[in-house]
Amino acid sequence: MPRARHVEKHFTAGQTVRDIVIGMADGLTVPFALAAGLSGAVSSTAIIVTAGLAEIAAGSIAMGLGGYLAAKSDAEHYESERKREKREVAQIPEEEREEVARVFRGYGLSASEIQPIVEALSQRPQQWIDFMMRFELGLEEPDPKRALSSALTIGGAYIAGGLVPLAPYMLLHDRFTALWFSIAVTLIALVVFGYVKGRLTTAKPIRSALQTALTGSAAAGAAFLIARAIS
Amino acid sequence: MPRARHVEKHFTAGQTVRDIVIGMADGLTVPFALAAGLSGAVSSTAIIVTAGLAEIAAGSIAMGLGGYLAAKSDAEHYESERKREKREVAQIPEEEREEVARVFRGYGLSASEIQPIVEALSQRPQQWIDFMMRFELGLEEPDPKRALSSALTIGGAYIAGGLVPLAPYMLLHDRFTALWFSIAVTLIALVVFGYVKGRLTTAKPIRSALQTALTGSAAAGAAFLIARAIS
Repeated sequence: MPRARHVEKHFTAGQTVRDIVIGMADGLTVPFALAAGLSGAVSSTAIIVTAGLAEIAAGSIAMGLGGYLAAKSDAEHYESERKREKREVAQIPEEEREEVARVFRGYGLSASEIQPIVEALSQRPQQWIDFMMRFELGLEEPDPKRALSSALTIGGAYIAGGLVPLAPYMLLHDRFTALWFSIAVTLIALVVFGYVKGRLTTAKPIRSALQTALTGSAAAGAAFLIARAIS
Repeated sequence: MPRARHVEKHFTAGQTVRDIVIGMADGLTVPFALAAGLSGAVSSTAIIVTAGLAEIAAGSIAMGLGGYLAAKSDAEHYESERKREKREVAQIPEEEREEVARVFRGYGLSASEIQPIVEALSQRPQQWIDFMMRFELGLEEPDPKRALSSALTIGGAYIAGGLVPLAPYMLLHDRFTALWFSIAVTLIALVVFGYVKGRLTTAKPIRSALQTALTGSAAAGAAFLIARAIS
């Protein structure tokens, strides 16, 4: 469907930006929290780095591969629902006509106003199916080719995000010094990330910045307290 | 919009089931992979359990709180877009009428078929706005009250999933014995979870079972190799 000129004001982030946001939000948060938690329990920064890198490997694959398989499933789900609609339009057209009518009754249109729409769609089976997919089932056609690049973008963003909180532990030997540097660089990264994310998606960038910083801090605080309590 | 009788065959999982699936998919995968990875690098199961519980705390908060804040943002985004549509319908009705027409031109309807639809909607500003939200912008009205219960469900499912692979490390002292038990119980859990998820969402349960097991295994294998390589 072509977009109206002034519609561009309704900005929604592009798919790649969304994938980066998804991967980096978790990548900045979970390895940060894990490393902070372990700082309260183990004395060796080598173990913290090992655990952090293992987590980054696990998390990036879980998010990337999980996202890839989910996108593939979505594409197949769309295809199978589309085949079903195609069959229904051919085999039980009266019920499908009634469904079109029901969509527009929901918008307050009268029977005599609805009749021409139903007629028009039922003369165009292909567009009728498209209409049912979107307006009855609320399904958008997924792009199966995006699954791979989306998986790599999410996984890569997770790795990039996860290396930020881990870098101080790689460079410094004292775990508490590393912890404070990790908190500092990660909070800065979370605030910048949240701000940019807010600019790109919701137009409340300062609140977005505070929210990502809060989420990261809460996760790290809980991990620290739990690791401390059991060690 | 009311649903047709036969539409019920198009089964889509309820919101709570979806939240459990989201939380448990990651909960079964990442703590499992982290524990497996650390088994290749550190000798103490106490450290593996500490890291695992810290990860579960971090991951459940990141997913739960992150999801909560995202749901709140979505609700506000919807509200602000709705206000914008309301303003546009009042201030630039001609452009909005053209947008309705464009939606239906996309379905192959002719100008004379579209005219009555545009007329009908433009006499009902409230429904017109609803129509634009859904059909022009593709936005569904979110339920802001669901944000909290959704966050708790996702976080709880992450914790429940994460305790499965960690349990053997809590009960057994030898890290490799614990690793094998962890692999066994987690693979069983991933297969059962994937199968049930497939039944509830896509109708290809066996492939879904294999996919969740594959994702968990890949994440654990990568974490193991990375932890081993650097330790």
